[in-house]
Amino acid sequence: MIHLHVELGNRSYPIYIGSQLLSRPDLYAAHIKSKQVLIVTNETVAPLYLDRVRQNLTSYQVETVVLPDGEQYKTLEMLNRVFDALLSARFSRNATLIALGGGVIGDMGGFAAACYQRGIAFLQIPTTLLAQVDSSVGGKTGVNHPLGKNMIGAFYQPQCVLADTDALDTLDDRQLAAGLAEVIKYGLIRDADFFVWLEHNIEALCARDKNTLAYAIERSCRNKAEIVAEDETESGVRATLNLGHTFGHAIETGTGYGAYLHGEAVAIGICQAADLSMRKGWLTGQDVQRIAALLLRAGLPVIPPAGLDAERFLELMAVDKKNLDGRIRLILLEKIGRTTLPVYVDRTLLESTLNGYGRN
Amino acid sequence: MIHLHVELGNRSYPIYIGSQLLSRPDLYAAHIKSKQVLIVTNETVAPLYLDRVRQNLTSYQVETVVLPDGEQYKTLEMLNRVFDALLSARFSRNATLIALGGGVIGDMGGFAAACYQRGIAFLQIPTTLLAQVDSSVGGKTGVNHPLGKNMIGAFYQPQCVLADTDALDTLDDRQLAAGLAEVIKYGLIRDADFFVWLEHNIEALCARDKNTLAYAIERSCRNKAEIVAEDETESGVRATLNLGHTFGHAIETGTGYGAYLHGEAVAIGICQAADLSMRKGWLTGQDVQRIAALLLRAGLPVIPPAGLDAERFLELMAVDKKNLDGRIRLILLEKIGRTTLPVYVDRTLLESTLNGYGRN
Repeated sequence: MIHLHVELGNRSYPIYIGSQLLSRPDLYAAHIKSKQVLIVTNETVAPLYLDRVRQNLTSYQVETVVLPDGEQYKTLEMLNRVFDALLSARFSRNATLIALGGGVIGDMGGFAAACYQRGIAFLQIPTTLLAQVDSSVGGKTGVNHPLGKNMIGAFYQPQCVLADTDALDTLDDRQLAAGLAEVIKYGLIRDADFFVWLEHNIEALCARDKNTLAYAIERSCRNKAEIVAEDETESGVRATLNLGHTFGHAIETGTGYGAYLHGEAVAIGICQAADLSMRKGWLTGQDVQRIAALLLRAGLPVIPPAGLDAERFLELMAVDKKNLDGRIRLILLEKIGRTTLPVYVDRTLLESTLNGYGRN
Repeated sequence: MIHLHVELGNRSYPIYIGSQLLSRPDLYAAHIKSKQVLIVTNETVAPLYLDRVRQNLTSYQVETVVLPDGEQYKTLEMLNRVFDALLSARFSRNATLIALGGGVIGDMGGFAAACYQRGIAFLQIPTTLLAQVDSSVGGKTGVNHPLGKNMIGAFYQPQCVLADTDALDTLDDRQLAAGLAEVIKYGLIRDADFFVWLEHNIEALCARDKNTLAYAIERSCRNKAEIVAEDETESGVRATLNLGHTFGHAIETGTGYGAYLHGEAVAIGICQAADLSMRKGWLTGQDVQRIAALLLRAGLPVIPPAGLDAERFLELMAVDKKNLDGRIRLILLEKIGRTTLPVYVDRTLLESTLNGYGRN
């Protein structure tokens, strides 16, 4: 078992990565401080892992909420179902919530924990690659709004993250690829050596080689933990984790939540950000090719949906948390392994990318 | 103008108390850091004060949301209307929200600010006595759930509190009395001299004597600010502010939000807490009489609703943020001017109060 640490003063917590972690009662016991436990999961994950988790919690009062699966259910309405469960069971302020699932469950479970009685403890048990390498770490929680993704939420840190790599065995190929988009992102924004390592190991990752996957998860979490420790509430460097995400969120919102997986939309967005970085004169055409090629080898889409034209993209991108006073700001690449902080982008240049990249 | 200070490190902020404050553009300008401003108010307050506030904001992009008036509208659904307005206007993370109204608007506006894009700045402009002396100070924000009051929320501090005492001119007598319940509470929990002062000045307060009211507001806010500075997130002494509130919340939830004003329910709850404190042997019968007499002189109810029997009270009180692992904890009085921290109460004794106090 690998044990990483997210350093955030009195909100610090460990990330455990390894095999068979779901069945380690000691890990649960170390981070649950009361008798009341609510497990929040979804219809896909529940049949696979809910019993395995519950078996470690026989000495607790355990309630469960099973939500429908998918980004389209990351809503205030579903959040309220979690509150219903907590209140129906009369759970106290010292209760613990366990988010068992992918990024959607982690984001919603974490936000429910942040708001219930103004904050109860919670554990992240991410079961997708994307959640293990990215969304479960760092305390970003929230739900979507029809007009914008992740627009309602809180910064709220878990007691621990328990990433059981065995859970990836049941992940379908599309979900695995979606996680690799965020893995590749770490290479691009701050870890050029990792990007090169990924170029050499992407097929092993897609083939789910255990050791290769474990290494990629650890290195991704290490990158994430360092960034979060430096800038918990995204006043600076944390925004660089959003490479490709402004484009990606526009794709997710514009095509209806759930049509694209988050990682798929981010893969396309990374390519658009790379194209724009080339137009700024920072990346070479060859860099852009390398990036797209790696994403393609990971099984990811790299071309924006035909139905979203430049005008619609701009409209959707106007609602983004990095924007200030209504002006769009983006994370761009200065080279492979180094990003800008959020920058205002010339409208004409941005339109060139929206009309040019991936359009015939 | 009186200028108090809530000391919370980098979340510290001023409370301004005085006449004509709504029309001081300098106060707005000092605390609004961007061009985008959303005013959240309600149908009662908007015709009275919205224009007066807007007149100071001509150099900003100002949007408004006018919600229906009443505790029954302190819901996730109404909260979502605020998010709709913020997103429709494409407001950024550096936008500022102004909560203009009583406790319900302050709680909802503050919670919307806490969650929008994981946190934007907000100003409290309380227009009721209850909001000026209590709910606008200290950063408790949130909404109700059908199963429990204030069960969904956040600790989130404003940039400033702007308490214009002129706003009380338009308050009806019932609302004024509701605010006095919280004023009397400060005397009971930690300021015996203030309790005696209130016994001498309650008629002047009910008659809205300006100087007397201003003094009561200042002294209340001073008490509140000291407690909040000591214990922002209610791990200790802050819970004493909840004297009478566990009973009171049960009354509000059990009779349907809006039937009793919050301050009215708290007045009854204070009497029940006093009765229970007497049964514990701490207060004398004379103390209980003094407390009820002062609340009555303030125009407040002191008898629990006939429709709520002891069993229903216990059921409703089982959902309270002070409870731990399902056991009811209450704030009681050791004497006038001193409370306990939350204590577990013997069930039989509690039932004696619920069946005995105010029942014939």
